Amino acid sequence: MYSADYLRNFTYQLFRKLGCPASDATTIAEILVAAEKRGISSHGMIRIKNYYLMHEKGRINIRPEIKKERETPSTAVVNGDGAYGMVAGKRSMQIAIEKAQTAGTGWVATKNSNHFGIAGYYTMMALEEDMIGIAMTNANPLVAPTFSKSRLLGTNPIAVAVPAGKYPPYVADFATTPIARGKLTIKGKQGKSVEKGLVQDAEGHASTNPDIIKEGGAILPLGTDREHGSHKGYCLNSIVDIFTAVFSGANFGPFVPPQVPFLSIPDEQVGEGLGHFFGAMRIDAFQDKEEFKNRMDKWIETFRKAENIEGQPEVMIPGDPEREMEKKTGREGIELLDSVKKDLSELANNLGLDFEINGA
Amino acid sequence: MYSADYLRNFTYQLFRKLGCPASDATTIAEILVAAEKRGISSHGMIRIKNYYLMHEKGRINIRPEIKKERETPSTAVVNGDGAYGMVAGKRSMQIAIEKAQTAGTGWVATKNSNHFGIAGYYTMMALEEDMIGIAMTNANPLVAPTFSKSRLLGTNPIAVAVPAGKYPPYVADFATTPIARGKLTIKGKQGKSVEKGLVQDAEGHASTNPDIIKEGGAILPLGTDREHGSHKGYCLNSIVDIFTAVFSGANFGPFVPPQVPFLSIPDEQVGEGLGHFFGAMRIDAFQDKEEFKNRMDKWIETFRKAENIEGQPEVMIPGDPEREMEKKTGREGIELLDSVKKDLSELANNLGLDFEINGA
Repeated sequence: MYSADYLRNFTYQLFRKLGCPASDATTIAEILVAAEKRGISSHGMIRIKNYYLMHEKGRINIRPEIKKERETPSTAVVNGDGAYGMVAGKRSMQIAIEKAQTAGTGWVATKNSNHFGIAGYYTMMALEEDMIGIAMTNANPLVAPTFSKSRLLGTNPIAVAVPAGKYPPYVADFATTPIARGKLTIKGKQGKSVEKGLVQDAEGHASTNPDIIKEGGAILPLGTDREHGSHKGYCLNSIVDIFTAVFSGANFGPFVPPQVPFLSIPDEQVGEGLGHFFGAMRIDAFQDKEEFKNRMDKWIETFRKAENIEGQPEVMIPGDPEREMEKKTGREGIELLDSVKKDLSELANNLGLDFEINGA
Repeated sequence: MYSADYLRNFTYQLFRKLGCPASDATTIAEILVAAEKRGISSHGMIRIKNYYLMHEKGRINIRPEIKKERETPSTAVVNGDGAYGMVAGKRSMQIAIEKAQTAGTGWVATKNSNHFGIAGYYTMMALEEDMIGIAMTNANPLVAPTFSKSRLLGTNPIAVAVPAGKYPPYVADFATTPIARGKLTIKGKQGKSVEKGLVQDAEGHASTNPDIIKEGGAILPLGTDREHGSHKGYCLNSIVDIFTAVFSGANFGPFVPPQVPFLSIPDEQVGEGLGHFFGAMRIDAFQDKEEFKNRMDKWIETFRKAENIEGQPEVMIPGDPEREMEKKTGREGIELLDSVKKDLSELANNLGLDFEINGA
């Protein structure tokens, strides 16, 4: 087990060794460890090795100059200058929040960025300012549109955070596919099969093999098949692709540069890097602050009272599972997979750092 | 078969007879007939009888004063004053577009409104201004959150329209459930069962009975069950509820007033009427107009080239099926169900109007 502080400090030191400025190393460490605390380990420390190798391959700019390239009172297009996604993402969300202070809302489309970790992190930045936060990103193309066997879209997550009053905030953060890629990887490593309706093989036939995406298979859109609304999942997923990448000038669809060092960038590029989209809306643009929070409290109370189906868990408010995990990891510490500990230990050795393989 | 012009003129006359101002009757007729042209007959002429009866019951204000109650440079809260939803919706979208002209984007939350027809209509208003359009609405509570048997949410659609250059625009318009309510009704009238994974009975067990929602059953969120991501569908559906109704001051969740005359308004109300949310974003807030349209053309071309699975239809671009139907209805006319023709004929008689029961 590790404390969040230990992992944050280790991660900070590691990215400093790579040459990142102190503030950027702080941001990266903060967002990776936030994922661990919230139980989303697929977006946490496991990513560091890839992040390191992406830098080694010259695919990350560790001294980026992140700039607004275009703006209106409520919008900006941000050029992430090839930065780590967390660095470009956090700066972009700050700009959205600044815009919202004066215009009521702020919307930022970011290009020339990379994998940004958990989308929910950026939306929660808005909560501290009494704003609603929105974040989306596109991602490696692994998802096939309804009726297709072509992998044209990423798992393209959407996150939305809404402040409440006496209750914790509403925080939804979800891939627009039935299953996230990281969860398939874990099932594969465990040698398990998955339910039908999550993935298909290279010919588009149903598959229960979580590793099928390594053999040309694809993840399905949310809804699974036409009869169960996968065309709606395809709409949602493609909206994220358009908002993040067509708007910003990033690569969309199959042109998105893979965020792993062992896959090369597609020959054809239609923009720069991958894309994000951020939104911030002042709650007092809609209601007096107290009134807004009271209304969200009432919404949450109403959904807390939902009757659950016999034998099923209690109904949740979006954000509940991650808050439960935050309590647990705060109490018990953060567990890392043996393979992650080994990777971090090796990286630490290479860089002249210490990593406590038995926890700290 | 009917021509769009005939139905539009008939509908206009009918709402004039009810006492609607000319411009409002024009708006209602335009949006109902747009639904018929696009093949979404569940939101077309079939609604007129209910709209009429809702007025008879005093649940519609036919002489509304629609007003902005609160605003920032990029936002407004609009009070629909109990209007027909189309009247409040169109005015609200116009305000979003006006805001976007100066602020880059415009966002309007509308309360005290009613059923507004097809969400896609409002988003397409933005296309004419070289803007991206967004529209959402909440609706009668018939959807249960994941794990629950309580009907707390509507089928809460989202629509997004994005302009392209040489190709027709991208227009997604979808309920955030595996099936829309109107389609269940049609299956029920045909005496057919539906696939598993669309609805559940009053106890939360799987059902294939499309009429089960008349017996306390519920529609499932997009994703069907937890294993196939229904918690993501629940997130999406509840985001629509919060954006449309918590923001605006309308009724949310189970408090939404039913949009049919035979169901009464819940005793507890937490706001006014039902709620919508509209957005407009200038495309030149993100890219030069031509560049933006070229990028969307490239996006569309890329997805047109998707390989389809053997035996499956061609991959579609959102908006394709409705455009096909527009061509067909433009060529062949609009077909109405016998029951709809009968209802309209009776209404016409009551109001001293003519309705050609054999087409026109």
